[in-house]
Amino acid sequence: MSAIQDLYPDDYSHCYGCGRLNTHGLHVRSEWNGNEAVARFHPDPWHIAIPGFVYGGLVASLIDCHGIGTAAGAAMRAAGKEPGVDPSPRYVTASLQVDFLKPTPADAELVVRGTPSEVGERKIIVDVTVSAGGQITARGRVIAAPLPKSMLPAGA
Amino acid sequence: MSAIQDLYPDDYSHCYGCGRLNTHGLHVRSEWNGNEAVARFHPDPWHIAIPGFVYGGLVASLIDCHGIGTAAGAAMRAAGKEPGVDPSPRYVTASLQVDFLKPTPADAELVVRGTPSEVGERKIIVDVTVSAGGQITARGRVIAAPLPKSMLPAGA
Repeated sequence: MSAIQDLYPDDYSHCYGCGRLNTHGLHVRSEWNGNEAVARFHPDPWHIAIPGFVYGGLVASLIDCHGIGTAAGAAMRAAGKEPGVDPSPRYVTASLQVDFLKPTPADAELVVRGTPSEVGERKIIVDVTVSAGGQITARGRVIAAPLPKSMLPAGA
Repeated sequence: MSAIQDLYPDDYSHCYGCGRLNTHGLHVRSEWNGNEAVARFHPDPWHIAIPGFVYGGLVASLIDCHGIGTAAGAAMRAAGKEPGVDPSPRYVTASLQVDFLKPTPADAELVVRGTPSEVGERKIIVDVTVSAGGQITARGRVIAAPLPKSMLPAGA
């Protein structure tokens, strides 16, 4: 099974956070599993806030792209499609909330879990946790919306 | 006058978002001006969500580091010190909220403004806007807290 982001159309695969075609990017990859999506991420040594601890903006970026990927998966499930197998629809972030519960250690694999809590046609809400070493260090919520017409590529 | 982040102690100047000693980082620089702080940022070509539009995680990162810099400035003002001249205290992000109002164009200088709305000893709240071409494209709120003991460098 592919990551949800690997099945975005090429035009929508340039995202710095999760686009497979962005050579500078973070390459967040969200895999569907049951009723949630899971991403695993190893921060680079320079992704720190203070030595030893992950940069909050990186945590926010993981929650953002993984939340949007989870929203795509939830929309596919609602439409009878299979996340990670069928092409993924592209959502955008309407709002992002992150609560930093404790410092996130920089030397651990981060596990990001997203669970859809509301799946509507115009809005999907995803609750996200970020864990390191089995401990949740941040909680987030993403409100996702279908890609607006103003962001469609020229000619679409 | 220096940026607030340029006057963090060396140990706290490695942040990916705003640390002057992080050679890979974004180098967000917040300058105090009256009752607010202002940062100007030019995204790199790869900081996109979809071609032509800035990555939301970058917008969140700007709001995060600029909000924390603004909190430092507000704390200094409350203590009778001068932001951008005296050494800056280091705050961390307790929570981060971003509302994406419209797509942020990738080819514009971004202007980030932070205004403290509550300045307490244990918590400082900063409201932030991100503008491109004179239009506000995102609004954020950062709740900042003094650096916890668990994040102090060894020996401090």
